[in-house]
Amino acid sequence: MTTDAEIARAAVLRPIAEIGARAGLPADALYRYGPYKAKVSFDAQEALPERRGRLVLVTAISPTPAGEGKTTTTIGLGDALNRIGRRTIICLREPSLGPCFGLKGGANGGGRAQVVPQDEINLHLTGDFHALTAANNLLAAMIDNQVYWGNPLGLDPSRVTWRRALDMNDRALRDVVVGLGGNGAVRQDGFDLTVASETMAVFCLAASLGDLHERLGRMVIGQDFARADVRADAVKATGAMTALLRDAFQPNLVQTIDGSPALVHGGPFANIAHGCNSVVATDLGLRLADYVVTEAGFGADLGAEKFFDIKCRAAGLSPAVAVVVATVRALKMHGGVAKPDLGAPDAAAVRRGAANLRRHVENVRKFGVPVVVAINHFTADTEAELAEVFACCADLGVGAHLCRHWAEGGAGAADLAEAVAALADGGTARFAPLYPDALPLADKIDTVAREIYRADGVALSPTAVRKLARFEAAGHGHLPVCMAKTPYSFSADPAALGAPSGFTLPVRDVRLSAGAGFVVALCGDIVTMPGLPRRPAAETIHVDASGVIQGLF
Amino acid sequence: MTTDAEIARAAVLRPIAEIGARAGLPADALYRYGPYKAKVSFDAQEALPERRGRLVLVTAISPTPAGEGKTTTTIGLGDALNRIGRRTIICLREPSLGPCFGLKGGANGGGRAQVVPQDEINLHLTGDFHALTAANNLLAAMIDNQVYWGNPLGLDPSRVTWRRALDMNDRALRDVVVGLGGNGAVRQDGFDLTVASETMAVFCLAASLGDLHERLGRMVIGQDFARADVRADAVKATGAMTALLRDAFQPNLVQTIDGSPALVHGGPFANIAHGCNSVVATDLGLRLADYVVTEAGFGADLGAEKFFDIKCRAAGLSPAVAVVVATVRALKMHGGVAKPDLGAPDAAAVRRGAANLRRHVENVRKFGVPVVVAINHFTADTEAELAEVFACCADLGVGAHLCRHWAEGGAGAADLAEAVAALADGGTARFAPLYPDALPLADKIDTVAREIYRADGVALSPTAVRKLARFEAAGHGHLPVCMAKTPYSFSADPAALGAPSGFTLPVRDVRLSAGAGFVVALCGDIVTMPGLPRRPAAETIHVDASGVIQGLF
Repeated sequence: MTTDAEIARAAVLRPIAEIGARAGLPADALYRYGPYKAKVSFDAQEALPERRGRLVLVTAISPTPAGEGKTTTTIGLGDALNRIGRRTIICLREPSLGPCFGLKGGANGGGRAQVVPQDEINLHLTGDFHALTAANNLLAAMIDNQVYWGNPLGLDPSRVTWRRALDMNDRALRDVVVGLGGNGAVRQDGFDLTVASETMAVFCLAASLGDLHERLGRMVIGQDFARADVRADAVKATGAMTALLRDAFQPNLVQTIDGSPALVHGGPFANIAHGCNSVVATDLGLRLADYVVTEAGFGADLGAEKFFDIKCRAAGLSPAVAVVVATVRALKMHGGVAKPDLGAPDAAAVRRGAANLRRHVENVRKFGVPVVVAINHFTADTEAELAEVFACCADLGVGAHLCRHWAEGGAGAADLAEAVAALADGGTARFAPLYPDALPLADKIDTVAREIYRADGVALSPTAVRKLARFEAAGHGHLPVCMAKTPYSFSADPAALGAPSGFTLPVRDVRLSAGAGFVVALCGDIVTMPGLPRRPAAETIHVDASGVIQGLF
Repeated sequence: MTTDAEIARAAVLRPIAEIGARAGLPADALYRYGPYKAKVSFDAQEALPERRGRLVLVTAISPTPAGEGKTTTTIGLGDALNRIGRRTIICLREPSLGPCFGLKGGANGGGRAQVVPQDEINLHLTGDFHALTAANNLLAAMIDNQVYWGNPLGLDPSRVTWRRALDMNDRALRDVVVGLGGNGAVRQDGFDLTVASETMAVFCLAASLGDLHERLGRMVIGQDFARADVRADAVKATGAMTALLRDAFQPNLVQTIDGSPALVHGGPFANIAHGCNSVVATDLGLRLADYVVTEAGFGADLGAEKFFDIKCRAAGLSPAVAVVVATVRALKMHGGVAKPDLGAPDAAAVRRGAANLRRHVENVRKFGVPVVVAINHFTADTEAELAEVFACCADLGVGAHLCRHWAEGGAGAADLAEAVAALADGGTARFAPLYPDALPLADKIDTVAREIYRADGVALSPTAVRKLARFEAAGHGHLPVCMAKTPYSFSADPAALGAPSGFTLPVRDVRLSAGAGFVVALCGDIVTMPGLPRRPAAETIHVDASGVIQGLF
């Protein structure tokens, strides 16, 4: 067995009630979707004790085409913790359909470190993203509908900022004109991928169904003719949106190939949003388990920073340990090796590229969270190359552990698990966000740019300056910032790998996500509706004669 | 308890495994979605014996704003058959989200004749429509994507007929321009309600997963620069579409308040498509039960005709009995009474309006199917008014039964059930479609217009004439026709209630649904994307403090 699909299909899945029992959930807490998926009911959640588990964040070096295996490591570490007798739940974000049809698979781990059943997790899971799409588009329909029926809110159709959404990579919908043919106000509009919608960000940051309703109501959907912000509440859509999302808001329970419970729930974009699974899933995990292993999007400069400054701040979470994932291959790319040349051993390149790892480790420590490095093993890694990574970590005073969970499942990450458990139990974490709520928005951007990206400074566009002033005047100055920057570099230039310095971070525009509760700083062009490639994966996906879906992952 | 919602909520639901057992399904045949919904697995379906049940169609007089209660009667009759010891399964179409947010509720029965759990059935059920939306839009994305990447198929962007879909009443999306901003070919496009898509029609007429794949591949999505039809297969989307639909294609099992098993699956529009639940659900019912009660869309002129000529023809079904539902209130409207005046007794109006009932009964008999009339009782009905309906039925030689299932559940339709069972068991049905496959398309339209609508003839537009010739030349002449006409009148004039005659049926255009397997005749303007009203129901839908959804139905 060599492919992820073959391994996933050969896995013997346990009934979801058995996984629920491992997680500490009685059978009647589970709202089942077939034999291997369930939602955890609100009633069961309410009956649980307070949070007691220790929160472990898995993050990574700056991503490269070589692959780092952050999700794989999150799963492998969770499996390993369970194997060494630590009751652990894994929390992951749900995959979007878009990438499944465009490239391949929803990034739910690989090798022997996967969440299963993969087909179902990739395609619809329990329908959460469909519910989010519907809720997002109900609001859009009600916005245009009130304009059609005499526009009692005085909404300026040319200043509607709320966009429609689909969970489908559809380039042709990026920029559209709606309302033609006498069907209301003709105006420019566009579709975002559902995961890039504020509806998704709100869903993932809401602490309860009531909080979800309030946050949806706070979302700004455009401006009226007097240039005042109009909120979703004014459109009277948020009750029905909450009704559409009620069932979806319950976290999904699935399992890893190793049999660990995994909560797979919510999945916002990691650029214009914060990029991690729902607060309610993390909260549920912390109330059930001794350890919760979760991941953040992209590299630590974006993913971990947002995890700490946005999610942990909003949800009152206090992480105990952070794992920074690196691979020899990826460090070689950060050290200047091109992808076609990755096959050749090059310890010197690893040494150069380790500057990227070093900076991420230093950054995570700034949040008061102890760090350990996971080296996700590839068979072609040489001893000399690995020695460079260990040397870098020794110099940093950070533990480093070679992990073989891809090939071996949880057993391959036992050393990492022991180290993580020891750090978590050591109680050395002194978590604090990078900046206080009270700092002005521009200073928050500046702080992240200097402290995390190591920029010399920030160049705010005149538009950004003007809008930040407007946001602060409107009472949004206390919000954290959500940086939308290329994940491939600490700088805004995706080609500047390694650990660039001496640059200025350009911020061309800013956007308010008042419901999610952050201000997005756009440092470059951010695609919120991807397109399909010339040869989409969808062309080869099919159901075979036995009813098995082939080509999906 | 007076409202449908109160009655539905007070109902004590049985675990879905118990309902499955009543239907003859072992527990492992059920892929459960929570305690009260399940899909019936492919494996279990394949293990069943051949069809053996008797098929009962519930249809109605021409619909009026007074309400006829066709779905309510379908449910009440099914409950009543079970009560008198006949093993019966009810087959219904799934509701669309669109009407739920626009007006109110998904038309899943009322009073004590409802399918439950209503909230879940109305909102997402098991996600079938979301899967259909995704499949439909994946094809759309792949069409525009291949144009973007050099257009290897030579598709003429201005002749793409495939439209996108959403399960949301969104007027602003009826007519849009896509591909702006350098994102491919700029072209006019539009969104249909998901239930109005050919994807939905195909889903509901496919006999198996393999047939679904083939039908999806046959769908015509536009023309190339040489004006030749381009099929979905050429876009290489149909494998992935089938993968998206695989789980959705399994029929959904729910229950009535009375505890009858109900298969709620698929729901195509009744104008540009055939308007009844999936073939696979009906087939499953006939393999499990002694009697299957199902319904067709609109009145018998459209719904029953399409049920017989499209669905039964395609699926080899042979109905044993048809029930025509009428109400005194609706017959009064057909007799000329305006809605505000319906409160006043008016036997003469009922007598005049009974002409509508008479014609529908005569029409159904033309298909060789024995008929019985169900008078859906309203408390304000007077004896004199009811006597007019009975007199009309006596004159026709058709049984008529006063039904109180709305107030009493299955017990209120026991007489109807006895009559239906007797007719079904009598073996008098000699079902045949109205016209043979070999008849030319224009003659098929003419036959339906004269025989069913009682038109003097058909006026085909020059466009329709030209396109019918093209369809026949392309080998589609054997297909049945699907009439898209106002449901409110036998004619194309919605104001001509009762039993109009002496009119010509205008056919302004025709459309090929090559995958579904019919040619649509458009007799007037047909809205395939409804709009929301001035005060959408969505404005008052909300989740209350107990987590219960209010205002939905």
